[in-house]
Amino acid sequence: MSIPAEDEDLAPVSSATGRPLTKRGEATRQRLLEAAETVFAEQGYHEASIVKITERAGIGLGTFYLYFDSKQTIFEALVIDLNRRVRHSMSESMAGAASRLEAERAGFAGFFRFTAAHPALYRVVREAEFVSPEILRLHYTRIVEGYEAGLRAAQGSGDVDRALDPEVTAWALMGMGELIGMRFLLWERDAEGRPPAELDPAVMASMSTLIDNALAPRAHERSEKEENR
Amino acid sequence: MSIPAEDEDLAPVSSATGRPLTKRGEATRQRLLEAAETVFAEQGYHEASIVKITERAGIGLGTFYLYFDSKQTIFEALVIDLNRRVRHSMSESMAGAASRLEAERAGFAGFFRFTAAHPALYRVVREAEFVSPEILRLHYTRIVEGYEAGLRAAQGSGDVDRALDPEVTAWALMGMGELIGMRFLLWERDAEGRPPAELDPAVMASMSTLIDNALAPRAHERSEKEENR
Repeated sequence: MSIPAEDEDLAPVSSATGRPLTKRGEATRQRLLEAAETVFAEQGYHEASIVKITERAGIGLGTFYLYFDSKQTIFEALVIDLNRRVRHSMSESMAGAASRLEAERAGFAGFFRFTAAHPALYRVVREAEFVSPEILRLHYTRIVEGYEAGLRAAQGSGDVDRALDPEVTAWALMGMGELIGMRFLLWERDAEGRPPAELDPAVMASMSTLIDNALAPRAHERSEKEENR
Repeated sequence: MSIPAEDEDLAPVSSATGRPLTKRGEATRQRLLEAAETVFAEQGYHEASIVKITERAGIGLGTFYLYFDSKQTIFEALVIDLNRRVRHSMSESMAGAASRLEAERAGFAGFFRFTAAHPALYRVVREAEFVSPEILRLHYTRIVEGYEAGLRAAQGSGDVDRALDPEVTAWALMGMGELIGMRFLLWERDAEGRPPAELDPAVMASMSTLIDNALAPRAHERSEKEENR
């Protein structure tokens, strides 16, 4: 996948004071988000509760409200946090890629690695459809924006077919990644419910061929690029 | 998309007698499913109830139990029914296509047309993740099976790149269709909540280019095919 947008999120603030969190405050907030990730993924939004989250985090109920107003607020914060981290995993994985195709592969590998480590991502995003549709849109749109910018730049330098609309292509490729991750990671869990740590190399190779085919510039664009060298 | 699998569903039976339904019985069952489609899509699984479904269908509560055992049973029957109909829409759309690419385009057009007419499809499938994971798998797997068979056949006749794994490719292309449908149909609803009747032709054209790029046989395979003529 292409370079995800730089992190545009502001530093988290206290819901009680509206002021930025201290280092310790941030650590507490992160513990609550981690507990929420597990509770929402295992029990779903309806069964989840603030008490279950604070119990799992080992944090007092009163403290919860210093960080979040409600179950919905922490759910939304969790989607935003997962979104930031999946984009980080993608861009980190892509850093230093030598070619466009290598960068695409690395971006997908970063996405799949994150999915394998955080199976909650899919469940939480799917529930967002009902709990908070705006947050669902935000999640997809943030990933697509970075992707689209990367495709546009690669079209400019002749590395991607210019006949493709970058926005449509970004949504299409994100959809590919989503269902490949669902089928070949989340549906391949072991007895303890853990997905494999990464995608089967044969599946990854076939997906890379498909993406390479889809994006490669047409013959006349390639020769143009050679001439300009 | 490729030829969806032939309809393997058995005729619906009465939950009271276990025997096949009469014509009138089938019509009543269909009315209940249509009401369920609206109620589940508008209110979500948790808020939906058997009473809301029977009221909307104009059918007595007692009659409901001649067809379905529970809210979960009618939900599962609805997913199976939507799945059968979306595959029908795809195969109908593909009938008579002159080339592989035309068939691909037509299959996607059939999928998008059904999505536009049944925005419930996405919501219901996403809730199935929580309500009935087996039915979620069944939905995706049935679409992929037919798709995969079509890709395999097209590889045999030299119309699709043989380097692609047909199963991985089928999942990838289904994912493309899913997110393109979400973004360019379901997120483009009018004030009454109705999505456009079909995909924007420019979006469809760009997606067709992407699929054509992705699937087209490589140059050496094409010349092989010419030679065999």
